[in-house]
Amino acid sequence: MKIVLTLGGNALGSTLPEQMAAVKETSKAIVDLIEAGHRVVISHGNGPQVGMIKLMMGDMAPISVCVGMSQGYIGYDLQNALREEMLGRGLTIPVCSLITQVLVDGDDPAFLCPTKPIGRFYTVEEAEKLGEPVREDAGRGWRRVVASPRPIGIVEIETIRALAEAGQVVIAAGGGGIPVIAEGNHLRGAKAVIDKDFASSLMARELGADMLIILTAVEKVALHFGKPAMRRLDSMTPQEARGFMLEGHFAQGSMLPKVQAAVEFVESGPGRKALITLLEKARDGIEGRTGTVIAHTNP
Amino acid sequence: MKIVLTLGGNALGSTLPEQMAAVKETSKAIVDLIEAGHRVVISHGNGPQVGMIKLMMGDMAPISVCVGMSQGYIGYDLQNALREEMLGRGLTIPVCSLITQVLVDGDDPAFLCPTKPIGRFYTVEEAEKLGEPVREDAGRGWRRVVASPRPIGIVEIETIRALAEAGQVVIAAGGGGIPVIAEGNHLRGAKAVIDKDFASSLMARELGADMLIILTAVEKVALHFGKPAMRRLDSMTPQEARGFMLEGHFAQGSMLPKVQAAVEFVESGPGRKALITLLEKARDGIEGRTGTVIAHTNP
Repeated sequence: MKIVLTLGGNALGSTLPEQMAAVKETSKAIVDLIEAGHRVVISHGNGPQVGMIKLMMGDMAPISVCVGMSQGYIGYDLQNALREEMLGRGLTIPVCSLITQVLVDGDDPAFLCPTKPIGRFYTVEEAEKLGEPVREDAGRGWRRVVASPRPIGIVEIETIRALAEAGQVVIAAGGGGIPVIAEGNHLRGAKAVIDKDFASSLMARELGADMLIILTAVEKVALHFGKPAMRRLDSMTPQEARGFMLEGHFAQGSMLPKVQAAVEFVESGPGRKALITLLEKARDGIEGRTGTVIAHTNP
Repeated sequence: MKIVLTLGGNALGSTLPEQMAAVKETSKAIVDLIEAGHRVVISHGNGPQVGMIKLMMGDMAPISVCVGMSQGYIGYDLQNALREEMLGRGLTIPVCSLITQVLVDGDDPAFLCPTKPIGRFYTVEEAEKLGEPVREDAGRGWRRVVASPRPIGIVEIETIRALAEAGQVVIAAGGGGIPVIAEGNHLRGAKAVIDKDFASSLMARELGADMLIILTAVEKVALHFGKPAMRRLDSMTPQEARGFMLEGHFAQGSMLPKVQAAVEFVESGPGRKALITLLEKARDGIEGRTGTVIAHTNP
């Protein structure tokens, strides 16, 4: 199968030592899929990393450039760990990370209401002086927020396609991709961070993938999450998923974008499936033993 | 022709605004070659950028990771400018930047004598407290120095090859590549910065390129540079170049590695040529109208 797989924050850790340890385990799970004969294009989040990089770089680099830097920061470790894991199993498949730009619409209403917190915490007095959008973050202080517009195109898609078709392992659209707005032939960096689940769903559609795998911190999607009535789902159709979303079962900025991204992929073509599960359960999930499958007919 | 082209610091500037302006002019010169039908793989320096990134990141990122980040920082702008310039001329050729690791030998004697200054300036008192190799830099203060070992392999060469053979434009081995030392299947980041001319020469050899173009701040290589007896060279054979190097005509860390890198490429196979010239003279140089050509027989 042609698979687009996206890694959550737990697959990468929050600091460089955590990242270097986490990518080893992450690579085992991914190489399980490669060894089973699947073709894999990998995306990943960058929340802690891009926040740290923006904090360190300050005014020396706008957020779009910081996303590009985070693709280098994470991609280097991840491609290295994947290469090592593959070589250890006798697989000599090239692996690379691509600096990837992702188009957003300058008129996306998300730009009117920035929601994605990045970088350091400020006191309310400091925050007022910033002259930039801020929001209070879970009682820990105030943070800058940037917009999180929807991705509408993967600029480097033909490069990703060429490498995937050559049988190579590709890491692309890291951190949701560098957000850019088209102005004629020019691409202008946007003050935004794109949700990596939406970017991966779009990439999977543009590549004509068979499966989108969203790896996260839970084994299955649940209704009534964290309540006594909690029910874990083995599968759902896109129609069922849309109903559950309307009923408010999935948390914004957490499970909701994953289910939305999965539904959009599955609805984009016949035979397309999505899987949401734990990193270490990816192979079991593909083989139907666990995870939540989103597909047109229940398997 | 299959060309590996490497850009000097003047093609990129020292700050982000300088870089964004410089890559536009740089892209015009490169797209001239692409429009003429040549296949181009591009490398670039990162001296000011990696120094700035290391300074900002401090202990959060070792120098190898900072090189990876600089590939994102520069590659994003460069691929964007190349795309825009190509689209403006009706060329729809994909362009990308690859996070590239370059192998060095852990026993390279360069590790015993770090020579490459990076990052901020210190007073002598501060420098003594660092507990790391430092050197006095041109009367401006003391700086950390890292080793500059010779590149011995391009880890992502099969990815670069696949894209080049698919007719795509590839930016690779930026800043000389992320320096790594092989320990079995593991690649360990090295505290080093690889010379981008040597890395480009190696990449050109591994790709079987026809020509290595080293773009720099002078139109031609000169003997007795800056002296009354100065003589600019239209061409030289590798043998002549080796003689001039022995006679001390070329400055260390400046023209010397360029001439060495050119000679090593030309000596690696029949029909291989190198060209050293100004960025804006690249096309004229290829067509034999200017620059210094290094080739087995004078053209």
